[in-house]
Amino acid sequence: MANFVNEALKKHKELRGKISVSLKDELDSQDKLSTYYTPGVAAVSSYVAKNPEQTRDYTWLNNSVAVISDGSAVLGLGDIGPYGALPVMEGKSMLFKHFANIDAVPIILDVHSVEAIIKTVKAIAPSFGGINLEDIAAPQCFEIEETLKRELNIPVFHDDQHGTAIVVLAGLINSVKITNRDLSKSRIIVVGAGAAGTAIIKLLKKYADPEILAVDSKGIVSADRQDLNAEKVKLLNFTNPNGVSGTLNDALKGADIFIGVSKGGLLDEDSVKSMAKDPIIFAMANPTPEIMPNLAKSAGAAIVATGRSDFPNQVNNALAFPGIFRGALDNHVTKITEDHKVSAAQVIAGLVKYPTLDKIIPSVLDDRLVSEIAKVIK
Amino acid sequence: MANFVNEALKKHKELRGKISVSLKDELDSQDKLSTYYTPGVAAVSSYVAKNPEQTRDYTWLNNSVAVISDGSAVLGLGDIGPYGALPVMEGKSMLFKHFANIDAVPIILDVHSVEAIIKTVKAIAPSFGGINLEDIAAPQCFEIEETLKRELNIPVFHDDQHGTAIVVLAGLINSVKITNRDLSKSRIIVVGAGAAGTAIIKLLKKYADPEILAVDSKGIVSADRQDLNAEKVKLLNFTNPNGVSGTLNDALKGADIFIGVSKGGLLDEDSVKSMAKDPIIFAMANPTPEIMPNLAKSAGAAIVATGRSDFPNQVNNALAFPGIFRGALDNHVTKITEDHKVSAAQVIAGLVKYPTLDKIIPSVLDDRLVSEIAKVIK
Repeated sequence: MANFVNEALKKHKELRGKISVSLKDELDSQDKLSTYYTPGVAAVSSYVAKNPEQTRDYTWLNNSVAVISDGSAVLGLGDIGPYGALPVMEGKSMLFKHFANIDAVPIILDVHSVEAIIKTVKAIAPSFGGINLEDIAAPQCFEIEETLKRELNIPVFHDDQHGTAIVVLAGLINSVKITNRDLSKSRIIVVGAGAAGTAIIKLLKKYADPEILAVDSKGIVSADRQDLNAEKVKLLNFTNPNGVSGTLNDALKGADIFIGVSKGGLLDEDSVKSMAKDPIIFAMANPTPEIMPNLAKSAGAAIVATGRSDFPNQVNNALAFPGIFRGALDNHVTKITEDHKVSAAQVIAGLVKYPTLDKIIPSVLDDRLVSEIAKVIK
Repeated sequence: MANFVNEALKKHKELRGKISVSLKDELDSQDKLSTYYTPGVAAVSSYVAKNPEQTRDYTWLNNSVAVISDGSAVLGLGDIGPYGALPVMEGKSMLFKHFANIDAVPIILDVHSVEAIIKTVKAIAPSFGGINLEDIAAPQCFEIEETLKRELNIPVFHDDQHGTAIVVLAGLINSVKITNRDLSKSRIIVVGAGAAGTAIIKLLKKYADPEILAVDSKGIVSADRQDLNAEKVKLLNFTNPNGVSGTLNDALKGADIFIGVSKGGLLDEDSVKSMAKDPIIFAMANPTPEIMPNLAKSAGAAIVATGRSDFPNQVNNALAFPGIFRGALDNHVTKITEDHKVSAAQVIAGLVKYPTLDKIIPSVLDDRLVSEIAKVIK
């Protein structure tokens, strides 16, 4: 970690930006200037003004995505504002290009209310073929994404929610296979009821309808709590069917699966021991997992996944979003649905032909990912 | 022209976008992923969040410009909307890259009121090192640019206004030299009182305080007219000192200089003959000039400039804006002032060492332009 800190600061300062714009043809003659700019471009502008649905065939709309953040929930750093978000959004743009050959542009916003973010994104939406929302705080992120999905005719995808949910589902599909479980009969504890936790819960319910308890920093999300925001109240439609209350440790007793998108170090060995036999632990807090893999294993965990590349089973959004957007752009998909997300998770899980305890999901470097996922986003 | 129409449609469809995003370093190892994205990027984000003025040193802010239009006045095509504007804005982004190595991103807006455009641009402004406004209709463009210049701390430049004005001034500096005139004692008729015309008038007044009459489709802009919008009323502070009224032809009698940013074909040979001896004609309507150069010449014009590359003396904004933005970005200039514009015009004029009737301004392919202009934008 310490090395990456120094190396990252050094390389970022040296490059002064990780992305640049390049030209698909050189402007090395007066004729090319006249073809790509005036007077020639006027014919193209007139044509697409009359046939706006064909703009994507004559411009970069068919391959461009905006990576948009207001900087309100950047990585684990919290609300550090738009400038703090820019290096991450540029990095995400690199991932889009590297993995899916998509031209992504970082857009950071100097507005933070739900209404202002929606208005701004709608105003610039014609500029792009898709919108990737990133690092926007919960619960604001839910209304922002839902409204934009409803009101825009291009794909809108909040990666912190759905990218994570898709990869978690992929990992669980293989994890329950290995541990001889039926996901629909598993008891699942999701810790962290923000953007990622909420999306994970909804996708798991859609896929297998298991019993889920959501847990936040105040304990189990339950109807008797007075401190729930509107989004957490809605979570009660998907979780806690028996109306139980209590702490994380209360929730964990006898549970099959722990999914953490919360804070480093909050899970101890005794809690793991209190779970069902051969429990599955997804400890995805970054950079420090809810429990370190060696501790979880020594406490009896069958499978441990984290968000980190230096341990087995890295749950990495980059497994999902490049293929999701590649498919949406190529297949003219304007809404990413729950069915798309389930299909993408199944594709990701299926790329591991023989899953093992230490290999439940493919590596982000698996070069089949983008094309195989893209096929099912149609 | 007809050839460029077909070639432009063909090439645009073939390329499907004229620009793309490229990476400054490859993501070909897990270490690079960890340096440019998580976990390494978190250190960069934390650092710039605490030192926002250094964001430009760690991201592409030092070299990125948004090319923004709402599609309300695209080329000579009028209000054709954002999709119609996109091919032009992508083309402009090509010019930024080709001439000045600036990473420009086309942003087209689905909002059109002055207030909504200002709000949107302010909301996304932290994403870019500069803002190039383009093809936004007058009179809205004036308030939009003035407000953004006042409220943002990055350079904001409406190229249709100031790019044109700078190049016209450059051309006139050399034209009056050749025709032995003093610009401050010349009578100038500016036809077209929109974005370009207004900016030309203001810059000429700033530079030499000549006598100017503005003419629009209703005739000379004068205090006795009841149909003037607020911006045209303001023009009376810069034009028509003697309060004359009348038609274009009334205005032209005895005038030294005709500057047309209006409609093709509105100037005839008799009108040119009614001007002072050896008149200077800048007929910049596109694609058809206010008068064709051969007609103007046969009617006695000493110098004719147009907007077209197939005639001598092409008044092309690309002579100015690449160097203006290169200088502003490199020298941390946050406002492009009237003094900057005058200096840029003087640099452009000075690059033609021995001006002739057919060579009053350099070619856009003159590779000294960007670096020489950039030096004076400081």
